[in-house]
Amino acid sequence: MRYYPNPARGLDIARVNRAIEEAFAEHARGNVQMPPKLYITFEKGDFRTMPGYIPSLGIAGVKIVNVHPHNPERGLPTVMALTVVLDVQTGLPVAILNATDLTDLRTGAAGAVAAKYLAPRRTVKLGLVGSGRQARAQLMAIRRELDVREVLVWSRNRDKAEKFCDEMGREICRAEELDVVCDCDVLVTTTPSREPLVKDRWISGGTHINAIGADAPGKQELEPAILQRATVYVDDPAQAIHSGEVNVPIRRGLFAPGRIAGTLGEVVIGRKGRKSPDEITLFDSTGLAIQDLAIAAIASATADSVELPFP
Amino acid sequence: MRYYPNPARGLDIARVNRAIEEAFAEHARGNVQMPPKLYITFEKGDFRTMPGYIPSLGIAGVKIVNVHPHNPERGLPTVMALTVVLDVQTGLPVAILNATDLTDLRTGAAGAVAAKYLAPRRTVKLGLVGSGRQARAQLMAIRRELDVREVLVWSRNRDKAEKFCDEMGREICRAEELDVVCDCDVLVTTTPSREPLVKDRWISGGTHINAIGADAPGKQELEPAILQRATVYVDDPAQAIHSGEVNVPIRRGLFAPGRIAGTLGEVVIGRKGRKSPDEITLFDSTGLAIQDLAIAAIASATADSVELPFP
Repeated sequence: MRYYPNPARGLDIARVNRAIEEAFAEHARGNVQMPPKLYITFEKGDFRTMPGYIPSLGIAGVKIVNVHPHNPERGLPTVMALTVVLDVQTGLPVAILNATDLTDLRTGAAGAVAAKYLAPRRTVKLGLVGSGRQARAQLMAIRRELDVREVLVWSRNRDKAEKFCDEMGREICRAEELDVVCDCDVLVTTTPSREPLVKDRWISGGTHINAIGADAPGKQELEPAILQRATVYVDDPAQAIHSGEVNVPIRRGLFAPGRIAGTLGEVVIGRKGRKSPDEITLFDSTGLAIQDLAIAAIASATADSVELPFP
Repeated sequence: MRYYPNPARGLDIARVNRAIEEAFAEHARGNVQMPPKLYITFEKGDFRTMPGYIPSLGIAGVKIVNVHPHNPERGLPTVMALTVVLDVQTGLPVAILNATDLTDLRTGAAGAVAAKYLAPRRTVKLGLVGSGRQARAQLMAIRRELDVREVLVWSRNRDKAEKFCDEMGREICRAEELDVVCDCDVLVTTTPSREPLVKDRWISGGTHINAIGADAPGKQELEPAILQRATVYVDDPAQAIHSGEVNVPIRRGLFAPGRIAGTLGEVVIGRKGRKSPDEITLFDSTGLAIQDLAIAAIASATADSVELPFP
């Protein structure tokens, strides 16, 4: 059994995108096992247990990930994750990966796969609502799939948006007001908001939206009217209804679960897709165990690790 | 984050019994979180993901355990387990324990707690059906709770029963035919049988039975008529109905789920218990995540470990 303290270091993002794409395709083909995430709740946070098995990639295991919003006050990340990988033939635990950065990357990769298939064009203006770790991961991954000519960034704290652009390169990136950011080809929302930030009137026909931030009951970033105009794809219907961008509108009767157009996997295998240049498409991401396993498979093949005695 | 390669070494069995007893009591009081085990199935086995949280012990985490019956042909144990412990305040993974031996011990401890509360007397003749690792764990744990004067052991392979007695001490232990073994005060069954081994006519009034072996759909060790005569306690009703000793009789209409008398936790807190010296009592064990967490809590406090870099 090997422990991987920093398996995200040096990972080839394009390769991650392909592995995640294949995991979604296998999901759509019905070739994976993935029971629903289990939640344990604490006073100050929660953790989720996410087992899965992708036979075609020969990988099985469990991601364990917490969300403790007050952790930064203690100098710890809000979200921390471990992935345990088991040998499919014997059940032997073969790898334990520090999966905190991998979680960012695999979520970014899902956004990149969605943008690859659903963006209205190949050369795009990218709008980012939120400028944290996940905004960075989305940008890095989407750049491998599309020609990103311009990046507009909004953050509740303007300084953070400016700093983000300093890091990402001033030649393509600039901080803007929220309505300006929303006037783009591909919009990515990555905030922890519980109130809609993005107004319906700011979204033009043809926009593709990655709705990433909402990953728990009560969270939402978009005015429900946007969902009503859009063709809504999800990673997994049960998870999205429970905790995705659609969860609050569904609970309030502003969106019907039956209006979910399909899964990202169905888009990847060509069963579903953009039907016109004016269509608003939306990918509602909650995060799947099979994404964690797909990225663990490639990270554990190359990253540094230490041997641990087992059994 | 620390890794514990051999946390069962040197554990005080009496202390394990008390920790498991407290976990069951908290379960009965409704003070734990424990979603149902999740199963992932492979061609040659399966693995189970078992998250839980015991607030009173300040411990939360996940056990991951496989069952691959053909592993011994490859020189690996059939069952191997890891437990990941998270800090309740921050969600930080603080400990990873090799939980293979701990799994034996915590199951033995549950049997000891059941025997402590349900055995017809304090000085007992113990019957063991099966002579493997779990038979050993049950004997070691029960000896801390009851005065075990005599141990009768049956194994399909007589040599194994003889070898078991060599290890456990010839002064109290002897190999016997199955019907003789069943004539005892406390009977413990630990085989992987899928057909009833123990006949109804061999079980006298007053016997307490720990039915340990059945832990998956299709497994059973006892003639259903025994369950019909006995007062049946379980660790967790949903798990027992799914995969405990009662699972096959329930599926065949030979035992009604409503006949389950209660949980071991209810027995521990005094809400339920033996009502007469002639009553046949039975504890149907499937194994709970909270047992794994309770033993992880005491093992990680004392066992040797190595530091792993995280986050």
